[in-house]
Amino acid sequence: MTFKYNNVYINGTSTITGPYEARGPFNKYYDKSYDNFYCGTSTWEQAESKMLVESVDMVLSKVMKVKKEVDLHISGDLLNQIVSTNYASATLGIPLIGIYSACSTSVLGLILGSNMLDSDQIKNCVVSVSSHNNGSEKQFRQPVEYGGPKRKTATFTVTGAASAYLSRKESPIKVESATIGRVIDLGITDPYHMGAAMAPSAASTIYEHLKETNRDISYYDLILTGDLGVYGKKILTEYMRLEYHVEMKNYDDTACMIYDLENQPVFAGGSGPACLPLVVYSYIFEKMKRKEIKRVLLVATGALLSPTMTNQKLSIPSVSHAISLEVNHDLS
Amino acid sequence: MTFKYNNVYINGTSTITGPYEARGPFNKYYDKSYDNFYCGTSTWEQAESKMLVESVDMVLSKVMKVKKEVDLHISGDLLNQIVSTNYASATLGIPLIGIYSACSTSVLGLILGSNMLDSDQIKNCVVSVSSHNNGSEKQFRQPVEYGGPKRKTATFTVTGAASAYLSRKESPIKVESATIGRVIDLGITDPYHMGAAMAPSAASTIYEHLKETNRDISYYDLILTGDLGVYGKKILTEYMRLEYHVEMKNYDDTACMIYDLENQPVFAGGSGPACLPLVVYSYIFEKMKRKEIKRVLLVATGALLSPTMTNQKLSIPSVSHAISLEVNHDLS
Repeated sequence: MTFKYNNVYINGTSTITGPYEARGPFNKYYDKSYDNFYCGTSTWEQAESKMLVESVDMVLSKVMKVKKEVDLHISGDLLNQIVSTNYASATLGIPLIGIYSACSTSVLGLILGSNMLDSDQIKNCVVSVSSHNNGSEKQFRQPVEYGGPKRKTATFTVTGAASAYLSRKESPIKVESATIGRVIDLGITDPYHMGAAMAPSAASTIYEHLKETNRDISYYDLILTGDLGVYGKKILTEYMRLEYHVEMKNYDDTACMIYDLENQPVFAGGSGPACLPLVVYSYIFEKMKRKEIKRVLLVATGALLSPTMTNQKLSIPSVSHAISLEVNHDLS
Repeated sequence: MTFKYNNVYINGTSTITGPYEARGPFNKYYDKSYDNFYCGTSTWEQAESKMLVESVDMVLSKVMKVKKEVDLHISGDLLNQIVSTNYASATLGIPLIGIYSACSTSVLGLILGSNMLDSDQIKNCVVSVSSHNNGSEKQFRQPVEYGGPKRKTATFTVTGAASAYLSRKESPIKVESATIGRVIDLGITDPYHMGAAMAPSAASTIYEHLKETNRDISYYDLILTGDLGVYGKKILTEYMRLEYHVEMKNYDDTACMIYDLENQPVFAGGSGPACLPLVVYSYIFEKMKRKEIKRVLLVATGALLSPTMTNQKLSIPSVSHAISLEVNHDLS
């Protein structure tokens, strides 16, 4: 399902990270980084929720708004019952739309907000996501303290929170169109190879988007998936060629960008809902504001992994959502 | 945040239940009931997901549509990673918006769909929810097999799935307006008394809705919360009087309606995302179609309970969303 927008802009963003992201290549672009996993709280879940609150407060202070002036908060995370979001929301007090779409949450949130803005149903919204390495590892795989070895196809969940403030007020980043994806399950059962589970869903959504907008892939200066990792990225490239006869051009994956893959112990790269927006709201938006790239398609990929269901020997379904962002020419 | 709709209708609904609901007072209104908790599958989670798929298939056959013709599926449930929804969606193949809002999911889904329909962004959508008694008890409290005693303030999670098909095509039930609520946390920590946790959030959303629509509570022939239970309903009535000086008139709670509270072992009543829509899409819609009631405000109440967070001795935040449904006079 594809939507076209005439009148939606991202007026501001905020990025908060944990220690591993701060040691990655985009450190200078982040608003704030913590040097430990607790962020001054006593548990990982509370740390994640605190980062989420801070990221909302930070983006609002950048756009000079107070919470009372915000119509909606759209947010989600990876934890059971999206607790980072819900506990953050109890502090924030902004009407909440809670969503769950694993690592595709950030783009799903941007789409919901953009739809309501474009049709004048709200005057503004904050869209946010968060994830936490230790909280996720404990919940989905094994507590980090076990020190279990991992396969090289495994990814490393990003610790951080990112928020965007959207309204109809013109600014350099315009939301142009978007596509909501279908859940795809091709039978992958390995929770240490989620790139393989997600690649077909990313391919399906990219193909739908290009078809429904009647565009060639070369329309975009950059297509950015997040987060397939080193192996998933290769699978997507081949899958697009074989299944849809599309050559991926100007393509990268945020999982392969957020860390220094040579020197950090992150296996096939980053993952988690915060991975894509942390890269986009920092490094990518800087490049867009400098007009080095003008048309970007973000394809957030979510592995809908559930320990309950993998214990029942079921495979891992995935869903991907896409959003097209453009440099606003009217402000040139 | 309140929305007003001009052009959104519920054209059809479906209701599927488990065995306890079938023994309740609305049995004759349900489309289908299972006499056991497995529904022909081997696990509770798969049973819940199967009911969800069936409920979508059933509503589509009622409105004579096929899945390919449906623009969007908006759905959520109580299980970690909303797995009933995600695994159902892999079978259904309709573009998915996955939401998590605990027992307020049904109304949040109706709101998201109504917003997109009213602004002509989609031509139709299916909004669905599900819950499963044994699956929820295992996940949130203790496996049913433990046979642990429960307090009388506890509720009994409904087993079932419910779907609604929405479009701009006129039909007897019109979606009139809606209010997205704020997360409220007044410090309740008892997972066996969620009515107390949810009542203040229901009150907050009802108050916002009345204020933003400039209506008196007597505007509605029926206000229906779901699901506060016997004690939560009393708390809400008192809270509205003391905090907002509003006397609750024509008010009931679906938790108190779905079972025979005198003769079924359900403590303070039903709960779970499926509770409210199972009552509304069956008994209440029948009453509306017969014009016995014309204006109904549904207030779905979600306790954002998380075992992880209650183990950390945190209290239970709650959120409630409201939607106003009216008998379509144009069809009279």
